[in-house]
Amino acid sequence: MATNTSKWFPPAPATPKPTLKVYNTLTRHKDEFVPMYGNLVKWYNCGPTVYDASHMGHARNYVTQDILRRIMEDYFGYDVHLVMNITDIDDKIILRARQQHLIEELREQNTTLNQDLVDLVQLSWEKYLTSKVLKNIPSSELEAQSSHLIGQWDYVQARILDPSWVESALQRDEKFSMHVTNLENAFSAIEFARARLNSGAATESDVDALIEKSKDTIALELDERLKDTVSDPAIFRRLAAYWEDSFMSDMARLRVKPPTNLTRVTDYVAEIVTYVEKIIANGFAYDGGDGNIWFDKAAFDGSATSDAEKKHEYAKLAPWSRGNKALLAEGEGALTVYSSKRSPEDFALWKSSKPGEPAWPSPWGEGRPGWHIECSVMASDILGDGMDIHSGGVDLLFPHHDNELAQSEAYYNNCQWVNYFLHTGHLHIAGLKMSKSLKNFITIEELLQTWTARQVRLSFLGQLWNNRVDWNESLQAEVRARETAFNNFFVQTKALVAEWDASPTPENGTLQHTKDEKDLTAELYRQQYNFRMALCDSFNTPQALQALVDLVGTTNIYLKRGRSAMNIGVIRQVASWVTKMLRMFGLGEGPPLEIGWGVAEEEGSGGSADREATLMPYVRALSNFRDDVRKKAMEKVPHSEFLELTDRLRDEELVSLGIALDDQEDGKALAKLVPPSVLIKARDEKKALLAAKAAQKAASKAVAQQQQLAKLEKGKLNPAEMFKPPHVPEGTYASWDDKGVPLTDGQGQELAKGKLKKVSKEWEEQSRRHEAWLAYLAQQEGRTGEPEGSSS
Amino acid sequence: MATNTSKWFPPAPATPKPTLKVYNTLTRHKDEFVPMYGNLVKWYNCGPTVYDASHMGHARNYVTQDILRRIMEDYFGYDVHLVMNITDIDDKIILRARQQHLIEELREQNTTLNQDLVDLVQLSWEKYLTSKVLKNIPSSELEAQSSHLIGQWDYVQARILDPSWVESALQRDEKFSMHVTNLENAFSAIEFARARLNSGAATESDVDALIEKSKDTIALELDERLKDTVSDPAIFRRLAAYWEDSFMSDMARLRVKPPTNLTRVTDYVAEIVTYVEKIIANGFAYDGGDGNIWFDKAAFDGSATSDAEKKHEYAKLAPWSRGNKALLAEGEGALTVYSSKRSPEDFALWKSSKPGEPAWPSPWGEGRPGWHIECSVMASDILGDGMDIHSGGVDLLFPHHDNELAQSEAYYNNCQWVNYFLHTGHLHIAGLKMSKSLKNFITIEELLQTWTARQVRLSFLGQLWNNRVDWNESLQAEVRARETAFNNFFVQTKALVAEWDASPTPENGTLQHTKDEKDLTAELYRQQYNFRMALCDSFNTPQALQALVDLVGTTNIYLKRGRSAMNIGVIRQVASWVTKMLRMFGLGEGPPLEIGWGVAEEEGSGGSADREATLMPYVRALSNFRDDVRKKAMEKVPHSEFLELTDRLRDEELVSLGIALDDQEDGKALAKLVPPSVLIKARDEKKALLAAKAAQKAASKAVAQQQQLAKLEKGKLNPAEMFKPPHVPEGTYASWDDKGVPLTDGQGQELAKGKLKKVSKEWEEQSRRHEAWLAYLAQQEGRTGEPEGSSS
Repeated sequence: MATNTSKWFPPAPATPKPTLKVYNTLTRHKDEFVPMYGNLVKWYNCGPTVYDASHMGHARNYVTQDILRRIMEDYFGYDVHLVMNITDIDDKIILRARQQHLIEELREQNTTLNQDLVDLVQLSWEKYLTSKVLKNIPSSELEAQSSHLIGQWDYVQARILDPSWVESALQRDEKFSMHVTNLENAFSAIEFARARLNSGAATESDVDALIEKSKDTIALELDERLKDTVSDPAIFRRLAAYWEDSFMSDMARLRVKPPTNLTRVTDYVAEIVTYVEKIIANGFAYDGGDGNIWFDKAAFDGSATSDAEKKHEYAKLAPWSRGNKALLAEGEGALTVYSSKRSPEDFALWKSSKPGEPAWPSPWGEGRPGWHIECSVMASDILGDGMDIHSGGVDLLFPHHDNELAQSEAYYNNCQWVNYFLHTGHLHIAGLKMSKSLKNFITIEELLQTWTARQVRLSFLGQLWNNRVDWNESLQAEVRARETAFNNFFVQTKALVAEWDASPTPENGTLQHTKDEKDLTAELYRQQYNFRMALCDSFNTPQALQALVDLVGTTNIYLKRGRSAMNIGVIRQVASWVTKMLRMFGLGEGPPLEIGWGVAEEEGSGGSADREATLMPYVRALSNFRDDVRKKAMEKVPHSEFLELTDRLRDEELVSLGIALDDQEDGKALAKLVPPSVLIKARDEKKALLAAKAAQKAASKAVAQQQQLAKLEKGKLNPAEMFKPPHVPEGTYASWDDKGVPLTDGQGQELAKGKLKKVSKEWEEQSRRHEAWLAYLAQQEGRTGEPEGSSS
Repeated sequence: MATNTSKWFPPAPATPKPTLKVYNTLTRHKDEFVPMYGNLVKWYNCGPTVYDASHMGHARNYVTQDILRRIMEDYFGYDVHLVMNITDIDDKIILRARQQHLIEELREQNTTLNQDLVDLVQLSWEKYLTSKVLKNIPSSELEAQSSHLIGQWDYVQARILDPSWVESALQRDEKFSMHVTNLENAFSAIEFARARLNSGAATESDVDALIEKSKDTIALELDERLKDTVSDPAIFRRLAAYWEDSFMSDMARLRVKPPTNLTRVTDYVAEIVTYVEKIIANGFAYDGGDGNIWFDKAAFDGSATSDAEKKHEYAKLAPWSRGNKALLAEGEGALTVYSSKRSPEDFALWKSSKPGEPAWPSPWGEGRPGWHIECSVMASDILGDGMDIHSGGVDLLFPHHDNELAQSEAYYNNCQWVNYFLHTGHLHIAGLKMSKSLKNFITIEELLQTWTARQVRLSFLGQLWNNRVDWNESLQAEVRARETAFNNFFVQTKALVAEWDASPTPENGTLQHTKDEKDLTAELYRQQYNFRMALCDSFNTPQALQALVDLVGTTNIYLKRGRSAMNIGVIRQVASWVTKMLRMFGLGEGPPLEIGWGVAEEEGSGGSADREATLMPYVRALSNFRDDVRKKAMEKVPHSEFLELTDRLRDEELVSLGIALDDQEDGKALAKLVPPSVLIKARDEKKALLAAKAAQKAASKAVAQQQQLAKLEKGKLNPAEMFKPPHVPEGTYASWDDKGVPLTDGQGQELAKGKLKKVSKEWEEQSRRHEAWLAYLAQQEGRTGEPEGSSS
């Protein structure tokens, strides 16, 4: 076609399309996000150190990062290459694995309770008391007390009843309460063990109880005595592998998508050695001569990079933390030996391993990587010489991330290894830091017992990703209310759309375009814009969620009109967009639906895309029932057994499958799909009611029988005997007829006519009663095959 | 936090993120796409005129636009507001509806075949021949022939055997062949009707046959005579509604997503009148005085807009078509009366309706909208005073879209009502334009009998959206090959991933990072980039598809290694991205799977996200079976009836549901899910085999009975009679003993010893046979209660 000679004016947007800005810890403001390679986002996320169960702090961190990742991938459409590491070499892992191993060993060595064991525990208790508790109590206080440890322990026990005293103790050591608890547990265990030992009746389970209850105190003593004996690398690997599996399964339950690449430090030791060699060669690290290699902060900070105009800079992320001894020490790990370090700010790239610590070969002797170096090496291996995004919890800011940046930039001799550093905020529980010592520690396992993955995620979405989240009651109430509001909206719009799909009518279809529909459509586009603006503003998810909530609110008003006055097309469009965005955040479950959260596969296998998995339980129920019918038919059992079969199918098998069968008068049961929990509850209530009724009936019957028996027993006495002693006092009558009716009184006088009539009548009555009694006896005899006499 | 004093360098991308450019018919080059309102894309797409079945041309147009829409929504993440119209007022609809109605009326008026009807058909045939065929044959040719019409028809019939003659006829009129076919059909129908009429045996179905076969010729005659009598608006509405429904259902089958808003011209007539009034008021249209309102091209072209520096311009899209009479006439419609038009380039905004044409009130008298004006009005009503994208088939370029632009810009007095005009390319069939007259016309209904919606879409994806597609054998073969390649890839990767999920091993999990895995990952990101580059390059889907094909190819090489040497994480990532992109193009079916096309709900209801829909057939089968068992148990029927029930469940109900129950020796049937068609086939084959065996057995039994009877019947003869006439010739023997054994021959001579022995033996044998016969008779008598004699 010819070139166009007509005029065309490039659009000048009335509202420009917003661009994504992210809060970057490197600049501490929101920078426009520009990836280095087209649409690809290279992203490294600090993974967990695996030595214990993951907790709500992990949930906060990894769910939040998963939200950011999903926004990048599924909303902004970036191709994300996400690498995450598993730290499986770490001093905490070493200590935990070693102590666990030594405790297990102790347990195996002691098959019976013995004095040596109790003494060992006692000693460990004393050392723990001294080193963990007493040393943090001002000596002025202690000196006024008994010089005996037990006396000092009594003093502590007395003071912990005073909240202000505990408060000041916690300020000196935040683990104070935890230590006291450990000591209390061990103390009572020791006392109990002594008693059992004295009783001479101690069993193997007493050993278990003693070690289990005092393990926190005993571990330190065992480790001090025996750490050098622990040399099998499998001991360390086993613990890490166990908690890695546990972490991955917790993440899956929280619907955190797995990273593109997962890297483990133990798979990267050789690469780490090579990497450290290059840093030394670049002049930014030195050999301590004792098997430790230290990063040379002084050589690095302010030195020239390969780009002459740019200089290296140490602690760009948290310059205010430079020299913070506590942070530095925690970053180095409890087992590090500092003696060869030139400056307090230098940190270990490679650590010499002592006996009882896992070790790998290196040019500097057997040792293991420092903490920070792993991330530099693994990120470099997978992502190359730089990345767009590095993320992690804010607790990693310093020294971990500052040291990681320094050593990577020392390796590449560049000045910006990471373009955007994202740090997720802390989590507090009802205003307090979560910690075991504060007893507000919640593992993910515990969390998911009362909260669904969706509720947890919804609660984090309602907060800025880089702010602190306080997990408190008002947050929890808000999340439940919000979830309910979305639920109600989905239920109503789904029903309307399904109804319309089943029988579309032009009146409420897509062809109605009055002002109301146009207003609702305009509201949709307005909230779509607000939603985008919010996410572009450094992933402002609370504001984005608010856009959805507002849209749902406006739509709910529209939904109040009569069914025939609605444009289902607009409702469908709103509901499906809200659905899509909530799913984009990771709130959906199972395969996507047009409207609604979706159904997780666990909750009802029907949500599964796998037809076989969905159907097989039902098919099996049918097949089994048929098998039973066939068998019974072949065995020609009584017909009642078939009825028992049909009842059992209805009340047992189908209840578990979530099918309610209501038998109808016409013989065709009505089948309904109902959640199994509802059916089980209904069935059990019905059972309980029936049982109660039956019990009542049985009780009434027993009473009636009692009454009847009492009545019958009145006839026990043969009427022939009734007017004779001992049934009447000796000498009441003197003679009787042959039936036993008295003729004369005790004096031999004939009975008066009236008296005779009375006794005759009494005799007749007793005679009738006695006949009834004999009949009852005969009946009982017939039943039992043997006469029972008069016993009831 | 304090402001950061450290240096941060905004990233300078090594590869900038590509931006979307679209081929814009307004400029005839690729312009960067910039929407007017943030992320919202206002888009109007020209919908169908509904008067006939939709065909492959529609498939090409609407599937292609659906692909562009999905790319915009699901790949680039735009919020798309798509409006599409249904043209349900149009001269083609009027003519078709009127003619159909008149033919139906004619049919109702003629319950018997009659001379008048045949004469009417004959007349319509003659007129059709003259006006449609003979007028396009050079008169020089015809003059040389018989002056009778029949003679000239014979001449045409003779000449159509000459391909070059037909070729030149088609060049004069592309519908030549179609007209000849119509005439041939009508001719033979008339001849047949005459014969039936003469035979005196004509029935009502002869009327049907005559009218049906000659309807194309008769419609013109009826319309000419009776069009004025057709006044009920429902006649026009019914035809449009029927084909609108048909179109929407064809689109659904092609998986074309419905537009956000669907508008119908009949719902917008009042708004159209108001719109036309404003154009008149703006000075760009005039009242012809005969009820027609014309757009004033001369007043418009080159006049000033509201922006003084910009001028109106007519025919920006296809200036080369200005003044093309054929296109202009087709744009105006067959029923338009031009007399009041000032210039040939003027076009109707409002048309006066004559009798037999639907009409709405207007200030200019009863009439109806011109064709182009509807789009201006409906788009304005929903999208406002401008839009980002307007799309349509390239056949609408001129005059439809140029006129629509002109009148909208005349209404708003602006100069750029549409920023991007997208025209989808034509469709050819094996190199030729598709047309009924070329007999290569394919309706969507026909298309979907041999091709799946996925294959159709895949074939269009393989071509540029704005190029011509040639639906030929090589394209078809390519599509099938490509689909198979993706299928094979999905089958293999799905199996590997499922196997790994069932039993993950660290060796081939996500933790293997050798060069091969890194190369494959790099290839993934390279092809993701190529894919984006392609789509940014004006939706270059062939190139984007090629990126997927190349990635699958590279991955297939990686997949050739042993299972244990693979990193399943990388395979999963590749396969799920390929899946996601193919689904993004609309190639998926049913709910999304991690890997694979998905399963359409029709193909197996298990694919449905709706648990209830999936399960209910199975639940019902179970419930019904249980009902039956219960009923039979209560009626205490024989046990065999339960077995009949279990057999029927296995062989009938469950077969239709796709459950194979194999009864096992241990009484527990093995249940399998198998496609119902397979089960039905197997069951019917089994039935046929059993029936054949039974028939054979019955036949063998009949033969055996026959043989037995023949043998028995030999004993019919009483041995006492066997040597007496008529069983031996008169005079063979002269005397017999009392058993009937002959003593003397015919001459009275005693029988020789040998002879006597022989007859005695024969007698004994017959005597045995006769006893058997009598026993048989007695048995038969016992069975039937009555002797049957010797009858079989």
